[in-house]
Amino acid sequence: MTKVAIMGATGYAALELIKILLRNPEVEIVALTTRSDEAPHISEIHHSLEGRLDLRCENLSAAEIAERADFVFCALPHVASMEVIPDLLADGCRVVDLSADYRLSDPAVYEQWYHHVHIDPTRLGSTIYGLPELGADKIPSADLIANPGCYTSASILGLAPLIANSLIEPTGIIIDAKSGVSGAGRKPKLGTLYPECNESITAYGVGTHRHTPEIEEVLTTLGGTDVKVTFTPHLTPMNRGILATMYPRLKEDTSLDHLKEVYRAFYADKPFVRIIDRLPATREVAGTNYCDISLQSAGNQLIVFSAIDNLIKGAAGVAVQNFNLMAGYPETTGLIV
Amino acid sequence: MTKVAIMGATGYAALELIKILLRNPEVEIVALTTRSDEAPHISEIHHSLEGRLDLRCENLSAAEIAERADFVFCALPHVASMEVIPDLLADGCRVVDLSADYRLSDPAVYEQWYHHVHIDPTRLGSTIYGLPELGADKIPSADLIANPGCYTSASILGLAPLIANSLIEPTGIIIDAKSGVSGAGRKPKLGTLYPECNESITAYGVGTHRHTPEIEEVLTTLGGTDVKVTFTPHLTPMNRGILATMYPRLKEDTSLDHLKEVYRAFYADKPFVRIIDRLPATREVAGTNYCDISLQSAGNQLIVFSAIDNLIKGAAGVAVQNFNLMAGYPETTGLIV
Amino acid sequence: MTKVAIMGATGYAALELIKILLRNPEVEIVALTTRSDEAPHISEIHHSLEGRLDLRCENLSAAEIAERADFVFCALPHVASMEVIPDLLADGCRVVDLSADYRLSDPAVYEQWYHHVHIDPTRLGSTIYGLPELGADKIPSADLIANPGCYTSASILGLAPLIANSLIEPTGIIIDAKSGVSGAGRKPKLGTLYPECNESITAYGVGTHRHTPEIEEVLTTLGGTDVKVTFTPHLTPMNRGILATMYPRLKEDTSLDHLKEVYRAFYADKPFVRIIDRLPATREVAGTNYCDISLQSAGNQLIVFSAIDNLIKGAAGVAVQNFNLMAGYPETTGLIV
Amino acid sequence: MTKVAIMGATGYAALELIKILLRNPEVEIVALTTRSDEAPHISEIHHSLEGRLDLRCENLSAAEIAERADFVFCALPHVASMEVIPDLLADGCRVVDLSADYRLSDPAVYEQWYHHVHIDPTRLGSTIYGLPELGADKIPSADLIANPGCYTSASILGLAPLIANSLIEPTGIIIDAKSGVSGAGRKPKLGTLYPECNESITAYGVGTHRHTPEIEEVLTTLGGTDVKVTFTPHLTPMNRGILATMYPRLKEDTSLDHLKEVYRAFYADKPFVRIIDRLPATREVAGTNYCDISLQSAGNQLIVFSAIDNLIKGAAGVAVQNFNLMAGYPETTGLIV
Repeated sequence: MTKVAIMGATGYAALELIKILLRNPEVEIVALTTRSDEAPHISEIHHSLEGRLDLRCENLSAAEIAERADFVFCALPHVASMEVIPDLLADGCRVVDLSADYRLSDPAVYEQWYHHVHIDPTRLGSTIYGLPELGADKIPSADLIANPGCYTSASILGLAPLIANSLIEPTGIIIDAKSGVSGAGRKPKLGTLYPECNESITAYGVGTHRHTPEIEEVLTTLGGTDVKVTFTPHLTPMNRGILATMYPRLKEDTSLDHLKEVYRAFYADKPFVRIIDRLPATREVAGTNYCDISLQSAGNQLIVFSAIDNLIKGAAGVAVQNFNLMAGYPETTGLIV
Repeated sequence: MTKVAIMGATGYAALELIKILLRNPEVEIVALTTRSDEAPHISEIHHSLEGRLDLRCENLSAAEIAERADFVFCALPHVASMEVIPDLLADGCRVVDLSADYRLSDPAVYEQWYHHVHIDPTRLGSTIYGLPELGADKIPSADLIANPGCYTSASILGLAPLIANSLIEPTGIIIDAKSGVSGAGRKPKLGTLYPECNESITAYGVGTHRHTPEIEEVLTTLGGTDVKVTFTPHLTPMNRGILATMYPRLKEDTSLDHLKEVYRAFYADKPFVRIIDRLPATREVAGTNYCDISLQSAGNQLIVFSAIDNLIKGAAGVAVQNFNLMAGYPETTGLIV
Repeated sequence: MTKVAIMGATGYAALELIKILLRNPEVEIVALTTRSDEAPHISEIHHSLEGRLDLRCENLSAAEIAERADFVFCALPHVASMEVIPDLLADGCRVVDLSADYRLSDPAVYEQWYHHVHIDPTRLGSTIYGLPELGADKIPSADLIANPGCYTSASILGLAPLIANSLIEPTGIIIDAKSGVSGAGRKPKLGTLYPECNESITAYGVGTHRHTPEIEEVLTTLGGTDVKVTFTPHLTPMNRGILATMYPRLKEDTSLDHLKEVYRAFYADKPFVRIIDRLPATREVAGTNYCDISLQSAGNQLIVFSAIDNLIKGAAGVAVQNFNLMAGYPETTGLIV
Repeated sequence: MTKVAIMGATGYAALELIKILLRNPEVEIVALTTRSDEAPHISEIHHSLEGRLDLRCENLSAAEIAERADFVFCALPHVASMEVIPDLLADGCRVVDLSADYRLSDPAVYEQWYHHVHIDPTRLGSTIYGLPELGADKIPSADLIANPGCYTSASILGLAPLIANSLIEPTGIIIDAKSGVSGAGRKPKLGTLYPECNESITAYGVGTHRHTPEIEEVLTTLGGTDVKVTFTPHLTPMNRGILATMYPRLKEDTSLDHLKEVYRAFYADKPFVRIIDRLPATREVAGTNYCDISLQSAGNQLIVFSAIDNLIKGAAGVAVQNFNLMAGYPETTGLIV
């Protein structure tokens, strides 16, 4: 039995975490936190959990959490995460951090994109980046995993076989990504009000979205050469799902069939990546931990499509995948629905 | 008073045509056609027209139409259009054709993309392409106007100033376009059923969408050099709107400010193009004949966003804009709502 | 030329007001207000107005407004409205108030439902209720019109012919109403975030919704007998539209055909009420000032359906209808689109 | 291990059946049928099943199915079901029929509502109606279960405690129900095209919907007195979910608290019914087998809200619940997600 806490239990990813963890009979959720002192019951926050989990969301310190839990999912915003994670680790908890605080290796890059000085810089560079499809060997023994961003997972999984095999120009890769509105979080903002999003599609964060350096760093490490992407996210009128449409330039003419073989080899034995012939649709991965990838050509332009559920494979699902590897459960536990 | 007929009155664009034309007190809609012989009242087809237009949709020949109307909007599917338009013209009607039949200048290209031999090839090459923002001088005297495709208008308006001024590489232009579902027409198909489209985004027609040669031909003519685009349309869960996100490569470093000046000069005195600083959202042009264009940069990549209502600026609105120019009404008649 | 001001210009109904008024060439919009002191341009607030109206939203006093405008649409929240309207009237402005402040005749009833003491109670009881279909004779000479609530208009128009003709039991009338999310306003709240509303329908305000006493008072006055309704609003995943499904009990068996005649007679010469045989759908009235009403029976239960656009016939459209009557323009000016 | 076949595997409920059954390690899906002879792979029909179930949809006779399977879920349309079920039973299969063919006890009532002569009338009246919350004792030994309709389950579960305890007038019960579009099936029709349903709500089937006699029969049997309802379904712009808003008349004044106790007692030990204090929203039960019920009052009118996922508790979920009881698995197997 693993005793698990979730910090920041009020958001959309936390709800998915809870639902996935409830499917693992060897997991016990022992603590949920929120910054409010009113200690609302989790079913007041997430009505769908009515009758399924009898816990309140408490305003707990790291020490209080560590008294109850062996394992912590940190679903706090960035900055808030790095303020608590060192204490959790010091108190013996193992942590999957869903925020961006430990994803980048260079504190200067973190500061440039997040406009905060990193307060735990010594862990940057050594924290394991938890995208198991790119190498899961270091995850089981890690105490802290930086869980990837949602756009990041979709984009990296779509490009990794090309980068790893030096098949494409590493710079100027265009990623045109479309996300459902849950990706913008649960805090009320004008921009995510129903009548503002519904019946409309728009880009946002052009040239400034924080998943850009994350995509570039992971792919640069993978390819051993400087990777640069143009990343353009779009807010799409749907709750869930990310579709990344990617336009890499092949170094030399390569058949789609050969490329599909490269992808199938790269993702052999990876239970959550499906290389498909048809074009992916986000509804076909909604609610699942799958990443559907399709290779297409338009004239001599290669186009890679990658679709995930932003809250599952893009957040809670991969977090539990990491947790399963860390805690010694089969990688797919709770994730095949 | 201009007497107007609409052929193919049952589709979504035809409904918009009717609503726009009803706003012009000098237009009388005298005939609506459908291929059914049941002669349904137009308010049975489009319930929103209840009490606003008292006409039945009849199965009329070109001769019968020409007896009643001076002017015909042909909203038939391709092939059906070219089967009737020669007769309409011979009978003295002036025509705006909303289908693709007269948009391309080369019958061989038409056959390649539409898989039909063109039956009126002599008019190809001389038919006026009705995108008034690219030159409206030949429209007033035309008897036949080829009304542009929806994706085409959004894409061409977004790229024209760059092509006309030789500012970008003419080939390898990536156009990642997102359209609402009304663009797929009103014929029941599995792919456009509500539960198939809702809560999902997917690409379609990759490398094969028929607006590709249309975009390329118009821009090639405009730039005097062979333009090639990679055009990737996406079906987006909304009724209306197109957002084209375009990634051209600048020939040399040029400031965004300078480019905006180029665009503002190019579209000076064009009432329906708005060059905006913020990112466009399709809901901001929904129901209007506007095309909102925004220039952005991400690193050294220029990104052009262009948003229209696919049924208005992408079909019925520009059709009436052409009609207004042909019939001598102010260009904006019925189109400022 | 009528000089018009709109107080509270940042909301959804105000946007519709502006768009409708822009269609009347004899109206000049001279002032827009907001409580912010930053004086944002209206196109920063409502992007769709880009290039259509060159005005800033200012924080203006009643006196400042009265210096510029002859006529004021007050689109403020309740309480804020009654704080400014007496001054506007004293300064000679004529006013259409879109808030609830002057809709009820009894200050005690107002206090009971709105939990505020009315500060201008002497005007209650004498203010004209602006639902022109129930009698437009007093509107032209009024200085202040209380514009009806959105649910109220849909419900009253659906029931009025039955009440006026004493055809139904006046109490126990069930009104099951469904509204789009724009009816909840533009202020960010968790309950109207996109992911909270999308893919879900839920009731709210059961037994407490403030349109209840308004419906009851108007129908009571109309019928000369105490009318009581059970009003249950539902939040529906769409931007716009109200469908009210009403279950009145006929006093005695009456044929549908006869009832339709009663309705057609009641609404003869009312340009915005359409008595239809089919079932109304909100999309068929979206963007219009129409109210579509249908009578049906299920066994011996009469069911009345009434559909409007909550922002047009439910707010801005009827406000302009009232304005047209007050200012001497044709009732439909700007409202037939 | 139970060998299971699904007849009519191409629809939305069948997809849910498959996903639920895949969660039961003791179930093997051995056959899927469709009336097409092309034998499409199930992942061509339901893309989300890619890599999860390697079976083709075959055009199989009852005898061929019986050779492979012990248990059949019949997800065919009505009429098609009764054409095959007698043979399946004769060949030794146990069957859950998701169609309406065996739900009513009287062949004459069936013919009146379905406009077909029942071809297996002797089974009507003795077939077990599979709503386990109303009495699951006869389900385990049944060979044929009539699985309830979606609206039916929501409505009956919401009213059953009141009827069983004779607390309300048995006639004139108003049920105003709202359903997502998946309830209308997967066959392309104009009425369920995305642009026809999106941004709109409308009633349909007023006075004629076939779930009406089913609700009335089950409640009549339960209450021992003739129950009559006015059932008005509405098509709501969402994929999934039913919300039934019900207006029964209490025989005598009863407190909400007492009524809640009645409900809690009635559904004690029923794992899928949740009596909640807040108002239910369909998204809170989406993807689950829960039925959320809430009791409210508006003045002296009792209002009962009942929310389910139309494809799960309204179809596939309750079908598996019945199957679990028949096959001896725990009732909740595969259904707690």
